[in-house]
Amino acid sequence: MLSQVVELIENKNRFGITTHIKPDGDGIGSSLGLCWLLKSLGKSAEVIVRGEIPPAYQNLPGAEEVRDIESVDRDYDAIFVIECSDLDRPGIKGLEHEFTVNIDHHSTSAHFGTVNWIDSTASAVGEMIYNLCKAIGGRVTREIAECVYMALVTDTGSFHFSNTTDRTLKVASELVKAGVKPADISEAVYSNYPWSRIELMRQVLDTVKRDETGRVASLRQTLKMRETSGAVDGDNNGFVNIPLAARDVLACVYMREIGENQYRVSLRSKGDINVAKVAERFGGGGHRNAAGLRIDGDWDEKERELIEAVREAVEYGEAVAAGDITVAPDVF
Amino acid sequence: MLSQVVELIENKNRFGITTHIKPDGDGIGSSLGLCWLLKSLGKSAEVIVRGEIPPAYQNLPGAEEVRDIESVDRDYDAIFVIECSDLDRPGIKGLEHEFTVNIDHHSTSAHFGTVNWIDSTASAVGEMIYNLCKAIGGRVTREIAECVYMALVTDTGSFHFSNTTDRTLKVASELVKAGVKPADISEAVYSNYPWSRIELMRQVLDTVKRDETGRVASLRQTLKMRETSGAVDGDNNGFVNIPLAARDVLACVYMREIGENQYRVSLRSKGDINVAKVAERFGGGGHRNAAGLRIDGDWDEKERELIEAVREAVEYGEAVAAGDITVAPDVF
Repeated sequence: MLSQVVELIENKNRFGITTHIKPDGDGIGSSLGLCWLLKSLGKSAEVIVRGEIPPAYQNLPGAEEVRDIESVDRDYDAIFVIECSDLDRPGIKGLEHEFTVNIDHHSTSAHFGTVNWIDSTASAVGEMIYNLCKAIGGRVTREIAECVYMALVTDTGSFHFSNTTDRTLKVASELVKAGVKPADISEAVYSNYPWSRIELMRQVLDTVKRDETGRVASLRQTLKMRETSGAVDGDNNGFVNIPLAARDVLACVYMREIGENQYRVSLRSKGDINVAKVAERFGGGGHRNAAGLRIDGDWDEKERELIEAVREAVEYGEAVAAGDITVAPDVF
Repeated sequence: MLSQVVELIENKNRFGITTHIKPDGDGIGSSLGLCWLLKSLGKSAEVIVRGEIPPAYQNLPGAEEVRDIESVDRDYDAIFVIECSDLDRPGIKGLEHEFTVNIDHHSTSAHFGTVNWIDSTASAVGEMIYNLCKAIGGRVTREIAECVYMALVTDTGSFHFSNTTDRTLKVASELVKAGVKPADISEAVYSNYPWSRIELMRQVLDTVKRDETGRVASLRQTLKMRETSGAVDGDNNGFVNIPLAARDVLACVYMREIGENQYRVSLRSKGDINVAKVAERFGGGGHRNAAGLRIDGDWDEKERELIEAVREAVEYGEAVAAGDITVAPDVF
C-alpha cells in the first residue's frame, strides 16, 4: 500500500530501483522518476537495469546514469521493482535475497515483494509515482515530471487508450506545469527510429490485404525484409495497427517470419472483439484487443487458420455488440 | 472579448453557429459544443455549415442536426463564426449582413466580426468554448464535453503538438470527468477511414526516399494512385509525417499530382526548421513546421528544387540550433 511505501522511504536510506528488461516508457520513466524523487528527499538512489535502454528513453534525465548489471552488486536497504509481473522479469540475479518493493498497476501482479503496492486503477505506474511524490510531500521537479510524463504517454498510447482517466490527464496537466514540453516527449517516442523503420514499413505494408469479409486484415514480414531494410528491434512497433485505421477492418493478423516455417504473430482488434481468446487457442495470450503467439508450419496455411479464427472472434464480437448473444460459448 | 460574448449570449436568443467549409475537429467540435451550451441555457441555436461534415465527426452529438445551407435563410439575433480567418471561409452567403461573433485562437484573425474574441493562448477554440461555459455558469454536459474533447484532440494532434499546455490537459481532464471516453474519440478520428486509405498509403509509401544528406525525405502521389485506390478526400491525412518518424529525417516534401504537370505540395519539418519560409518562396504559406504550396512543371525538376530549398532550411535550422547563426538572412 501507498502508506507502507511512504513509511519505508522515510525509514530507509539506500535504494536500488529496477524494472523489466527491454523496459518500456512506463518501466524506465517510472524508475527514473522515482530515483529523482528519492534523491530530492536526500536519499541515496540508483536505477539498475539488465541490458540496454531503448533509444526513445535514452534522453530522459538520469538515463545516462542507469547501471546495466547482471546481479545485485551493492548494498541496498530496499530495491523497488517497477512494473514487473514477477521477480525474474528484471533479469538481475540476487533480487530474491533483497528487501523488495513491488510497484505495479497490473491487477495480475504476483505480489512477490516484501512490500507490495498495486493500483490497477492507475493508467501507468508513472501515475502512482506522481501520487507517491504528493503523498510524501515531495516537489514535482522538472526531472521527475519529464520521466513520469514519458510513462503516462507511452502506457496510454498518447492518451488514446481506454485506461486514460480524468486523473491521468490531471496528472499530465500538473507535469506540464512543472516544465514538461509535450512535443519533446512525443518526438523522443515517435520520431526516434532509424530510417530502417520506414524502409521496413514500406515492405511490410506492401503485403497488406483483407479477407473476403473485409473485416480482417493481414500483414507479413519476411526475414529477408528485415535483412534488406537493416531493421532493428522495435522498428516495426505499431505496424499491426495500420490497417485498423480503416473503419470496416475490425482485426489484424501480423505474421513475422523468425526462422524456417516459424512465425511470431501479433493480433489486434477493436472494441468487443477478443483476440486474447484466439491467441490462447494457439498457445499464446494477451489482452482482449492486443495478443500474440508463436506458430510453426506452412505460411499460407497457418495464415488461413489464424484469419479464420480471428474472423470467428469478429463475428462473435459483433453478435455480442448487437445483443444477439448473451451467453459466451467456451471458446470466447 | 470573453465578457462581451457572455453578455450578448445573455441578451440575445436566436443563434446561428458556423465554421469553415470542410470543417476540422476544432471547427465542428467547437460549433457543436457551443450549440449544446446555448441550448442548455434555454436559447435557440443551430449549427449551419456549407457542405458535408467529414466522417470522423458525423457521430458527434448533434452532428445529424447540422444544416447544410448556401445562404443565411433564417432570422438570427447573432451568428457565431468559429475558427475562420475571414467571413468568406464558411462559404455561406449573406453573413456580411448579420451580427457576427468571431471566435478564434489564431492570432492572425482579421477581426471581421461585430464582436471578436481571439485568444491565441488557447490550443483550440474548444478550450475557449469550455472557458465560455465556465464563465457563463453553464454545466459541462456529456454532449458539450464530447464535442469539445474532439476539438482539443484534433487541434493538438492528440496532445502531441507544442500548443498543448497544462490548461489544455486540465480541460481535457474535466471533460473526461464529464463523461468523455477518450478511446471512443480517438477511434472516431483515427480509425474511421475507408479501406482506400490503406491502399493509397501502400502506394504512396512505395515512393519514399531520402536526399543524399539523409535529412530530407520525399513522397509522391500520382493521379493514378488516387484512381486505383479509390481514394477520397482526407485519405492521405498524415502521410507526410510518416518519414519524420526517422530521427535523422528533419523535413519531408510530399507532392501530389492534381493535373498534368500540376502538383499540390505539403512540407513538414521538425523543431527550428522553418518550411513556411520555403513555401512562401514558392508562393505558398503556412506555419513553421507545416506548410504548403502549388507548383507546376516537370515533376523530377520541381521535386529537386523543393528538396534543395528545404535542405537549405534544414541547414539553416541546424546552424541556429547549434548557435552558429544568430541573425537571420532575408530568406528565413
